[in-house]
Amino acid sequence: MNTLVNRIAQGRGDEIADKVLRGGTILDLITGELIAGDVAICGDTIVGVFDDYEAREVIDVSGTILVPGFIDTHLHIESSLVTPFEFDRCVTPRGVTTAICDPHEIANVIGSAGIHYFQNASEHTLMDIKVQLSSCVPSTHMETAGASLSASDLAPLRGHASGLGLAEFMNYPGVIHRDPECMAKLALFENGHIDGHCPLLSGRDLNAYIAAGIRTEHEATSAPEALEKLRKGMRVLIREGSVSKDLHALQPLLNERTSPYMCLCTDDRNPLDIGEYGHLDHMIRELIRLGTPPIAAYRAASLSAAEAFGLKDRGMIAPGKRADIVAIDSLEGCHAHLVMAAGTVVNDTSFAQRRLVDPVGRHSVQAPKVQASDFRTRANRAETDVIGIREGQILTDHLHENIAIEDGDKRPDISRDLVRISVVERHGKNGNIATGFVKGFGLKAGAIASTVCHDHHNIACVGVNYADMAVAANRLGEIEGGFVVVQDGKILAELALPVAGLMSLLSFEEVRDHLLDLRAAARQLGVTLEEPFLQLAFLALPVIPALKITDRGMVDVHKFEIIS
Amino acid sequence: MNTLVNRIAQGRGDEIADKVLRGGTILDLITGELIAGDVAICGDTIVGVFDDYEAREVIDVSGTILVPGFIDTHLHIESSLVTPFEFDRCVTPRGVTTAICDPHEIANVIGSAGIHYFQNASEHTLMDIKVQLSSCVPSTHMETAGASLSASDLAPLRGHASGLGLAEFMNYPGVIHRDPECMAKLALFENGHIDGHCPLLSGRDLNAYIAAGIRTEHEATSAPEALEKLRKGMRVLIREGSVSKDLHALQPLLNERTSPYMCLCTDDRNPLDIGEYGHLDHMIRELIRLGTPPIAAYRAASLSAAEAFGLKDRGMIAPGKRADIVAIDSLEGCHAHLVMAAGTVVNDTSFAQRRLVDPVGRHSVQAPKVQASDFRTRANRAETDVIGIREGQILTDHLHENIAIEDGDKRPDISRDLVRISVVERHGKNGNIATGFVKGFGLKAGAIASTVCHDHHNIACVGVNYADMAVAANRLGEIEGGFVVVQDGKILAELALPVAGLMSLLSFEEVRDHLLDLRAAARQLGVTLEEPFLQLAFLALPVIPALKITDRGMVDVHKFEIIS
Repeated sequence: MNTLVNRIAQGRGDEIADKVLRGGTILDLITGELIAGDVAICGDTIVGVFDDYEAREVIDVSGTILVPGFIDTHLHIESSLVTPFEFDRCVTPRGVTTAICDPHEIANVIGSAGIHYFQNASEHTLMDIKVQLSSCVPSTHMETAGASLSASDLAPLRGHASGLGLAEFMNYPGVIHRDPECMAKLALFENGHIDGHCPLLSGRDLNAYIAAGIRTEHEATSAPEALEKLRKGMRVLIREGSVSKDLHALQPLLNERTSPYMCLCTDDRNPLDIGEYGHLDHMIRELIRLGTPPIAAYRAASLSAAEAFGLKDRGMIAPGKRADIVAIDSLEGCHAHLVMAAGTVVNDTSFAQRRLVDPVGRHSVQAPKVQASDFRTRANRAETDVIGIREGQILTDHLHENIAIEDGDKRPDISRDLVRISVVERHGKNGNIATGFVKGFGLKAGAIASTVCHDHHNIACVGVNYADMAVAANRLGEIEGGFVVVQDGKILAELALPVAGLMSLLSFEEVRDHLLDLRAAARQLGVTLEEPFLQLAFLALPVIPALKITDRGMVDVHKFEIIS
Repeated sequence: MNTLVNRIAQGRGDEIADKVLRGGTILDLITGELIAGDVAICGDTIVGVFDDYEAREVIDVSGTILVPGFIDTHLHIESSLVTPFEFDRCVTPRGVTTAICDPHEIANVIGSAGIHYFQNASEHTLMDIKVQLSSCVPSTHMETAGASLSASDLAPLRGHASGLGLAEFMNYPGVIHRDPECMAKLALFENGHIDGHCPLLSGRDLNAYIAAGIRTEHEATSAPEALEKLRKGMRVLIREGSVSKDLHALQPLLNERTSPYMCLCTDDRNPLDIGEYGHLDHMIRELIRLGTPPIAAYRAASLSAAEAFGLKDRGMIAPGKRADIVAIDSLEGCHAHLVMAAGTVVNDTSFAQRRLVDPVGRHSVQAPKVQASDFRTRANRAETDVIGIREGQILTDHLHENIAIEDGDKRPDISRDLVRISVVERHGKNGNIATGFVKGFGLKAGAIASTVCHDHHNIACVGVNYADMAVAANRLGEIEGGFVVVQDGKILAELALPVAGLMSLLSFEEVRDHLLDLRAAARQLGVTLEEPFLQLAFLALPVIPALKITDRGMVDVHKFEIIS
């Protein structure tokens, strides 16, 4: 209550404000005006705008435009390959002051303990991390994960201050076919927010999915798909990750009319892309460059995101809102000169003052030792299902190729870019090894492997040489998971990810350097994909059409069946 | 959970829908498109749109446009002068399917029992009545009300299904000056919605008021006032009541850009105006006639209202939303051919099937018997504070007139339209009688009196003849409150309001007839105001500038002081 009294007193100017941002011009997201004036701050809250204030601490933001802190409406922090604290240090300086995350990567490896880790971390980061509860661990029944979360496992995880309902409900077939466990989870969060995930769903199937109470969605990859979702009242989150890049396809839909109902998200973005291009700041720049009115881009990045997720305490530079403020060079440039998160100026000092939380999920890679022959493909006819990669998308094509059987095996054929893909169970549960074919890597030699392998995070491996594949997979067991590139039995590059096989203990700068080495090594093997590791990781996710592979075999996602 | 399963199954078309609206064209409030197609309904919820559905009951809405049910974002149902059930019958057929009410009129007379009455009634009306808890009973310390509600009185009233936070915080001086009781109430609803009321507040005072966590406001009477509130993140509710009519002043602000952040409300509207012009339907027609784009008008009437108050379950014709649907002739006409409220078709049959709740607050008028001499004005100087009426507004002017003292009294002067105004305490507490002057009625003879007298609801009386004033005031004691017009000792017209002295037991049609008689009688006395009774009622409300009168005397609202 004293806080309330102070806020009012400082807003009125009866008490001197804690801080004031002086000299800037505020972008008003309701009226679209640019209005000069002080911003007065009491503790973590804005208490005055468009007026003159005295303050204990005056921060000069002359020449900048002040916009509300950006809100990433859907992401898996694990995909940044660093801990939440390093993610904070990497992304907050770009203006992202709220991240609505789904910790389902770590939850697939270590269950509730992983969600607790994110909840605990959220109490100490500069950015506000909202931790949704993972709805689909594992994503389906067609994979072996390290843990599973039922409705009764989720119930006790509610109530944390970072809570924001149920995370992306990926098992859309389970929803529209009324699977009892899905119904139990939906019922548990009936009065809260339930986030969606329903790629390519339309017509009555989409009606049914939305009627289940699911209000937000980020899997639209074309303007017609997004338009149908918008028309039906779903808030569409435009995604620009490291693999799935939907901004160009959806940008034409984002205008002043629709901007209150559209948001931005990154889903899965690695620190290389963040370093090279940016995060939500990059999306804003791109949108404006492509012709989106600035007010629409900035609304989608903050106010509309706050509205979509019921975060009434943020999204504008206005009294009573969290002091999440970005001072940028220009609306088009969107380069942050200063970022304030809940009233704290984001810089090396404030990062250093955070209390860190010890990482969890160590020694999680419990795979069997494999050998070259494990990667042979058992089959008795030449017609073969092949995963066709679409670069920059997590959707794949379901291809059919004739591949001759030689010596009881179908061998990779680099002349047709048909290479072996395998998934090796690594949670110490059953040692499953599945094999298949993928087209689109351009790999000419060696192997690459990863424990980032959505969402079960087994070992995914592609190669043209079975011995190299075995070296790669076994190496991941030695380094507690990560990425590795092997040729002729030698490790060309690697990055250890000892936190659940998903996150590094290094700084984001160091991770970036390792990723550059890994990319270079992959290119040396002939790989033509810009982001081969995340692209590989998504080939294992059986809730994104059309053809995927898990440790249990090749999955036809449209049929929702293991087919080989 | 069965409901959830049914909703999904019916949305998908796996089960036959409960109802379908067939042949209409939906106005999509996100994209602005008009899209033909069925609307499938399961129970109280829309489960399918833009598709073909089979249903147990097919309702033909050919040739109509379907828009979401309208949401009145702020009103006192008591001002309709009928019970909530009659209000429902009067207004729901016009398309208003949600009414966010503040029961502070009845609460000023009988306290928590009045709020319970509205909460109970809300369970049985066709429209969804949301009952906010009254923040300011009494509105200030400068009046005698029948009851008072402290923070500890409000606490146990929370938790009812109709709850929607704290109602208009009228004591804005108490907020910005940090009155402890105001702080306690704000703290109690810190995580919920707090509605505002701050006429003419601006600059740092407005910043302080908003910083207190108050997010919506309906007292802006000019475009610049509304613009400042919008810029500062307040949702502006455009009001068109029977007295305060702000639509014409604020209409220029409502456009496609601002429409997601503006709403409509009626505050206080009597059944005469509802019958003659309409309710929110009238506002929509007027807005469009004045040039507001239809999408902006319909958003303000539904989707933006739902968003502003966190009603995520309504505001669009889309899957998962309440089946609140209005089939209208045209966007410009906005005449409802059919109204559906939570899946029930609104008609005589469904009204007849409601379970009514017995009215409360009978025999509440406990005023002393008064005589002519009680209306004399004691004063010792000619300079006189006079309330200047602004027709069509509840704001008044603070005038200064010289009025000669004759025989120890200052007498009404009809040549200058200076007539006596008095407030007589009627809750049986102290028998206070205050007297003063008002200009603007045009009264030439007799007296009019009312127990609708905001918000304390004492007896307000204006007259040029003290004996007639006494007859009028005493008559109100006999009929349990209401309105009365007296000339030469005779009752020319009256309407009894036995429910707390505020609401009739008659049908809204009968009340309308009485009001016509009362208006005609008032005109016969010379009254030139279109709506003399509600205009009179607001002269007693000391939270609206500039000069008002309560049972304790004339109040300078800017100074927040009793001045005579």
